[in-house]
Amino acid sequence: MTENIQIRLKNRPESTPAVGDFEVVKDSMPVAGDGEILCRSLYLSLDPYMRGQISGRHISGALHPGDMMRGETISEVVTSDHPDYQAGDLVAHQGGWQCYSVAKASDLTAVDRRINPHSLALGILGMPGLTAYAGMTYLAELKKGDRLVVSAASGAVGSMVGQIAKLMGCEVIGIAGSDEKCRWLTEQAGFEACINYKIQDLAEGLIQYCPDGIDVYFDNVGGDTLEAAMWQLSLGARVVLCGLMAQYNSDVMPPGPNPATIIKARATVRGLVVYDFFDKKQEFLDKVIPWVDQGRISYQEDVTEGIENAPAAFVRLMSGKNFGKTIIKF
Amino acid sequence: MTENIQIRLKNRPESTPAVGDFEVVKDSMPVAGDGEILCRSLYLSLDPYMRGQISGRHISGALHPGDMMRGETISEVVTSDHPDYQAGDLVAHQGGWQCYSVAKASDLTAVDRRINPHSLALGILGMPGLTAYAGMTYLAELKKGDRLVVSAASGAVGSMVGQIAKLMGCEVIGIAGSDEKCRWLTEQAGFEACINYKIQDLAEGLIQYCPDGIDVYFDNVGGDTLEAAMWQLSLGARVVLCGLMAQYNSDVMPPGPNPATIIKARATVRGLVVYDFFDKKQEFLDKVIPWVDQGRISYQEDVTEGIENAPAAFVRLMSGKNFGKTIIKF
Repeated sequence: MTENIQIRLKNRPESTPAVGDFEVVKDSMPVAGDGEILCRSLYLSLDPYMRGQISGRHISGALHPGDMMRGETISEVVTSDHPDYQAGDLVAHQGGWQCYSVAKASDLTAVDRRINPHSLALGILGMPGLTAYAGMTYLAELKKGDRLVVSAASGAVGSMVGQIAKLMGCEVIGIAGSDEKCRWLTEQAGFEACINYKIQDLAEGLIQYCPDGIDVYFDNVGGDTLEAAMWQLSLGARVVLCGLMAQYNSDVMPPGPNPATIIKARATVRGLVVYDFFDKKQEFLDKVIPWVDQGRISYQEDVTEGIENAPAAFVRLMSGKNFGKTIIKF
Repeated sequence: MTENIQIRLKNRPESTPAVGDFEVVKDSMPVAGDGEILCRSLYLSLDPYMRGQISGRHISGALHPGDMMRGETISEVVTSDHPDYQAGDLVAHQGGWQCYSVAKASDLTAVDRRINPHSLALGILGMPGLTAYAGMTYLAELKKGDRLVVSAASGAVGSMVGQIAKLMGCEVIGIAGSDEKCRWLTEQAGFEACINYKIQDLAEGLIQYCPDGIDVYFDNVGGDTLEAAMWQLSLGARVVLCGLMAQYNSDVMPPGPNPATIIKARATVRGLVVYDFFDKKQEFLDKVIPWVDQGRISYQEDVTEGIENAPAAFVRLMSGKNFGKTIIKF
């Protein structure tokens, strides 16, 4: 009989996590009960929000040492005791960092058959894509010609934010941490420009590329990046706060930008949590899948093979060394 | 011939201003030229934003040592060389900290004849009142039953924010700095409760009076007060940032609340500058004057007689020792 492999949290890291903070455990196969479905993981999504779960302060709940790491997977149904699913079906669910999982039908969603390759259901056509779509459609009040800036721009959320904004008539400036990422954003993803904040002063870069101010700022980072952007807002700017990469690796909550930045610009600042927009998923897929099929959206995946390598891939993600959507392929 | 008395900025204060930072100057009467109007000041408004002008970083421009202090006055027309105004007319304008001023017709507005006493045209029926009205009407997205918290609650802006919100069906909690102010807010102005932040821990008070979170927060203060309130927002809360009393006396820009406060609550945070709402003044007066006449709005004025006492009154205002709208009566 096949065995299951699981990754569990070993220690709560104090700053950037290390491979040793996780444990690879061989376990017996999970057993599906009445009405349940046994799933085999094909792809696992690694996301920065998991760092918050490890710290015990993410909106979705806390993880404790000894717990299996949580995460969304694309899985194949192995056996099903529920009429809605059959062996061979492709599903998305919270399978966690493991090879096999057991789920109830109500916790699964069928993967849209139009999505190809399937891994995109974890990236630009999954939660990160929906995050970007929700922000651009429901919170950013985009107007044609708006100058939009997005941080962590080459990530799954950031690259979709920029490309959706482009398709909605905006001019887009990215902020990223390497020349390679910046090159991809301007040459492949169609961004007007990209600031490599590691070699250029961010405030200067923002003034250079947004001489009339930032009309829309989408933030995945917090910290100094958010601070720099807030001082460059145009009158009536809109800011969407989505992620806090700069503080996920820390147990202290650093302060934010001075509120004068908001008053001065008469800005509107909104917080975005993708869970609030799960009911928009079909609308999102119907709109964005054709864009992907038509080649109007570029994407970048950072794929690691083997669940036992997930801790190293997560460490890379939390150090900003990934490039594109971080995925584990089983 | 009558002489003019002017208050000028002498030194730029580094923290809370002192009386010695200002100079009382006797000057000759200003002379009205062709088409101009000579005005005699009746009331002068003192406002916290003036501290920002002194620091050279207010939205309305900077003041330098030697400059006359700026400010809005209610004045009586002495002589007029313009057909729109006659001697005896009551006008509001930027007369400054002086007894007499010369103005162009385009810089004057007639004081609404329904306003009584006239000093209210500087307070709850003037710029502070319009500020509160604009925030409640256009930015706060008030819903009946919302629990609203306002800081600097006994000030001209704060007391109007709370009372307008009450009239729009909200439950209102004030934050103020003395028991006397709190008593007035609950006993006269109809607030549900008031937290004296000098004797009660603010975070605890907010949890006590807003056990389900703050639905709307109107901030006149910034700093620790804003920080405490931001952690207690309810889901979907709205925040209006209007004033930064906590940092006006400082040359450094302190940081703001961690952006997680906004994300966690899916809050909408907006900056309010009253200048953007000058076109709503008539609408505001038509709505609020009847409320005042019907006794549905209480107000408190902090009146000092004599322009030579304006520096001391301003110092008191900037130390939070005023109670109600600070006005100089000539």
